[in-house]
Amino acid sequence: MVYGLHAVRALLMRDPQRVSRVYLQQDRRDARADEIERLAHAAGRAVERVDARRLQARLGQAVHQGVLAEVAPLAGWSEQQLLDAVIRTPDALLLALDGVQDPHNLGACLRTADACGVLALIVPRDRAAPLNASARKVAAGAAETTPVATVTNLARTLGLLKGAGLWIVGADAQGSQPAHQIDLTGGRVLVMGAEGAGLRQLTRRHCDWLARLPSRGAVESLNVSVAAGMLLYEALRQRGEGG
Amino acid sequence: MVYGLHAVRALLMRDPQRVSRVYLQQDRRDARADEIERLAHAAGRAVERVDARRLQARLGQAVHQGVLAEVAPLAGWSEQQLLDAVIRTPDALLLALDGVQDPHNLGACLRTADACGVLALIVPRDRAAPLNASARKVAAGAAETTPVATVTNLARTLGLLKGAGLWIVGADAQGSQPAHQIDLTGGRVLVMGAEGAGLRQLTRRHCDWLARLPSRGAVESLNVSVAAGMLLYEALRQRGEGG
Repeated sequence: MVYGLHAVRALLMRDPQRVSRVYLQQDRRDARADEIERLAHAAGRAVERVDARRLQARLGQAVHQGVLAEVAPLAGWSEQQLLDAVIRTPDALLLALDGVQDPHNLGACLRTADACGVLALIVPRDRAAPLNASARKVAAGAAETTPVATVTNLARTLGLLKGAGLWIVGADAQGSQPAHQIDLTGGRVLVMGAEGAGLRQLTRRHCDWLARLPSRGAVESLNVSVAAGMLLYEALRQRGEGG
Repeated sequence: MVYGLHAVRALLMRDPQRVSRVYLQQDRRDARADEIERLAHAAGRAVERVDARRLQARLGQAVHQGVLAEVAPLAGWSEQQLLDAVIRTPDALLLALDGVQDPHNLGACLRTADACGVLALIVPRDRAAPLNASARKVAAGAAETTPVATVTNLARTLGLLKGAGLWIVGADAQGSQPAHQIDLTGGRVLVMGAEGAGLRQLTRRHCDWLARLPSRGAVESLNVSVAAGMLLYEALRQRGEGG
């Protein structure tokens, strides 16, 4: 399920085949709801007008704005699909997770990546959190909109992405520069390590820069999704899209 | 419990009376461990050398660096203590949560606030998540180091903080400016609303600026601790402390 005006509209424009049915709240009759109805009809998708209480029952406290879509799960990307997408996308921004094993953190990173317009999230097949129901729930819909590329060998994939013209930026407590001193405006892969352990040696060797994030407190490190959010925020700020 | 060289050292320097006992790993004999031992002895605190396995058993996967301290819980702050601390602190950076009801989010915000050197976290007494065991666990030790000021009336407290010379910056999806266009270098209170609902009207009216954060994706909004992390990151970047 994907809900909210913006999310459902984006899905109907980008990927209407994945939508099986759109639910619109009975009394929602305005330009934005009409546009969604029009897009759904144009793509041959079923639209149903439902009672506000029925939406509430399915979505609880979520801010659905009277719009809900049933969608087919987003298929994961292969390494080849990732490379194809990167080549088609100028200044692509990617997020890679190196050794993040907690599904909650995977979901939180996916949600953050989605909000920051990341092209895809890259995770290694082994020693990585599965994109299970718990991760999907925390992702709050982002698992249906931001593709996850699962790769056999993260270091190899980073090498291929470098070959495609991207630069690799690792987040590292011992990084040589604060994030804002690193140019994040072109095609970039931002790589986050596991909490505590950080980036693995092999991953670190593939990084063109190591970015330091705030760590002024008594606590050892930031949560990985918060650290990813800071680095992505900095990238968007540099790109003039910081808000 | 507080663990890690930096955290335990900071606690022994700032607030040694709260430490009841320090555990140091048996084989950890270096300048930084020695300094902790010296600080603990100087403050009349017990130090015990223990086996690495015993630390492991108590702390699991946490990165303890061979140092653990048992501490008395950090007392919450009253509004008056908050104001006193603000007056003593030039360019104080505070984080306030308006209507954040999930203990997990409270803990995550506390952890992020701690990493960013926030003076205190401000929460309203009503309609707010309790600082319970679940929140403390997610805070990963920050509940023992960053004070939480619980106030009866958040709007009133924001008014008093303005009187003390601070400016109030709310995070808001409809904010008039991206965060990086707002001056965050002086004394500032950053205010986060509940996910979905955002800031309450009364809180919003007390804000000197409303900061917009990235929202380019299909998903409705950022997790509140990630949004807080972005805004705090931006404040530290402007203060030349971004990493």
